[in-house]
Amino acid sequence: VKKFETIKQILGEDLQKSPSHSIGNAFAPSNIALCKYWGKRDQELNLPVTSSLSVSLGSKGATTFLEIIQDNHDQIILNDVVLQSDSPFSRRLVTFLNLFRSNPQLKFKISLHSNIPIAAGLASSAAGFASVIKALDQLMGWQLAPQHLSILARLGSGSASRSLWQGFVEWHAGSRDDGMDSVGESLTETWQDMCIGLLIVSAKEKILSSRVAMQRTVTTSSLYSAWPTKVAQDLATLKIAIAEKNFSLLGQTAESNALTMHATMLSAWPPIFYSSPETISAVQKIWSLRAQGLEVYFTQDAGPNLKLIFLQKDAQAVQMNFPELEILQPFSN
Amino acid sequence: VKKFETIKQILGEDLQKSPSHSIGNAFAPSNIALCKYWGKRDQELNLPVTSSLSVSLGSKGATTFLEIIQDNHDQIILNDVVLQSDSPFSRRLVTFLNLFRSNPQLKFKISLHSNIPIAAGLASSAAGFASVIKALDQLMGWQLAPQHLSILARLGSGSASRSLWQGFVEWHAGSRDDGMDSVGESLTETWQDMCIGLLIVSAKEKILSSRVAMQRTVTTSSLYSAWPTKVAQDLATLKIAIAEKNFSLLGQTAESNALTMHATMLSAWPPIFYSSPETISAVQKIWSLRAQGLEVYFTQDAGPNLKLIFLQKDAQAVQMNFPELEILQPFSN
Repeated sequence: VKKFETIKQILGEDLQKSPSHSIGNAFAPSNIALCKYWGKRDQELNLPVTSSLSVSLGSKGATTFLEIIQDNHDQIILNDVVLQSDSPFSRRLVTFLNLFRSNPQLKFKISLHSNIPIAAGLASSAAGFASVIKALDQLMGWQLAPQHLSILARLGSGSASRSLWQGFVEWHAGSRDDGMDSVGESLTETWQDMCIGLLIVSAKEKILSSRVAMQRTVTTSSLYSAWPTKVAQDLATLKIAIAEKNFSLLGQTAESNALTMHATMLSAWPPIFYSSPETISAVQKIWSLRAQGLEVYFTQDAGPNLKLIFLQKDAQAVQMNFPELEILQPFSN
Repeated sequence: VKKFETIKQILGEDLQKSPSHSIGNAFAPSNIALCKYWGKRDQELNLPVTSSLSVSLGSKGATTFLEIIQDNHDQIILNDVVLQSDSPFSRRLVTFLNLFRSNPQLKFKISLHSNIPIAAGLASSAAGFASVIKALDQLMGWQLAPQHLSILARLGSGSASRSLWQGFVEWHAGSRDDGMDSVGESLTETWQDMCIGLLIVSAKEKILSSRVAMQRTVTTSSLYSAWPTKVAQDLATLKIAIAEKNFSLLGQTAESNALTMHATMLSAWPPIFYSSPETISAVQKIWSLRAQGLEVYFTQDAGPNLKLIFLQKDAQAVQMNFPELEILQPFSN
């Protein structure tokens, strides 16, 4: 919290003032990292060991309705269900909101709607915290730039720092202790015919939060020491692939980056393995399709589900092989 | 082959002389590495990047009957089936035998019997090449020490250097270019109540030879740089665990070592993943049993099958959970 006071000072006195509105409401997209964020250099400020790069998911994400209430505690509603105040998500959100109350009596009703499965490794917390900070910006009348909202969203969930923009977003690791240079940046390049396919293998809540998994990996995995170098290479390669519209290069790099992240977890103790047997079947199917010439790649986050990456020209073939796939086009409205 | 001439000179003129018998016959056990051999510093001499440590499997392994024949090519019989001379295994074995012919006209009938599934990641080639070199030692009348046979067996298959002994065997990486210090050593310690359970998930031939997989990992995996340090730590820990009969420490270290080896492969390109969905189900079952207090660990080589590690007191409980398990007691005859 002491570190947060520094952030407040740097962002100006704006964060101290009383709310200018009684409601706020905002949407933020989910984002899928093509180069992953895995490992923190600061637990409190969610400062990452490495930079990362994502693509946002257009209309897939979270919407937050925020309202000031006359009550002695916050009220949190997730997809129309009132959460217990001692649930893990409630605690996390209340702790986040505590950072921004102009006085301790200021309480909120927070209603979050997510149109993607919660906590199934589909980056729902990123969209959640990004939409909360945007709604808070409205309600409080801060009128902060997206870069500054990115810094604040990061305090709730690291990857939320990338959900302030659509399209390709790079989250710069930064090097400052206060994290003021650990911020998202929207890339100008787009990729009209890129498709992301959501393959829900299981919509169950994941066994281990990415927060805990990440920390255990950093602490116990003997392979983690090689991760920062891998990220630096993949990040540079992905930018080349995006600039040159070299889809094979993008797909290979994203898939290899995800597999390497999961590899660092396999080497942790106790070992962490998010894939279910169904995940493995799907992965083998993807590899077999690729061997047959269909250019489809995947990435995977802290859960059993896969995100397939392919071009629009192959969308029909991919859909035929994965009938249950939900296909998104991040760059076309 | 030039490097092999050096080895011949060091071992003495014995290797040049004509056969003293017309037949030879020998058994060598399979071995399961608790600390894996993964990566070569010399392709021709099968010199490893790191040392490794295994336990031999008693009566599970390979028997070779070797006989001089009057023919213009070798005849190779594997489990009573005559192999084509252009099959991969025939080529590999003939190339190996070429190193030892006192004249090019010397041809052999080689009949190999393996009592474990061939090429399913159950170290059948290790037992195979170790039994061939022992049979050759008889037939040729070399009367070499096991250490020297270990060096020669390594030229056929790296892990064969560990199959010259029963019990715990350490294969020292060595540092010499000619590999004369890259040799197996039998550890004096035993562990009477240790059990190894063979869980055959699939007896199909593996998709990718460990030879190719290893080389691809060394060349393309960004995590491989962290592997030698992991091995050095695990090797030291395993020796402590064996000396102190600390089974939890042995099990954890062996399992973590295997997972880390597979992790380096996940990070290769194209990615290498030997586990099938059935392997993953079994792994999850093992983790779940362990969470319930049953001390069972696993190791896995270049195939989908698992080797379970547990103590005799838990053998019945493990067998009940894996009815198809074949339980071996490496230290009791």
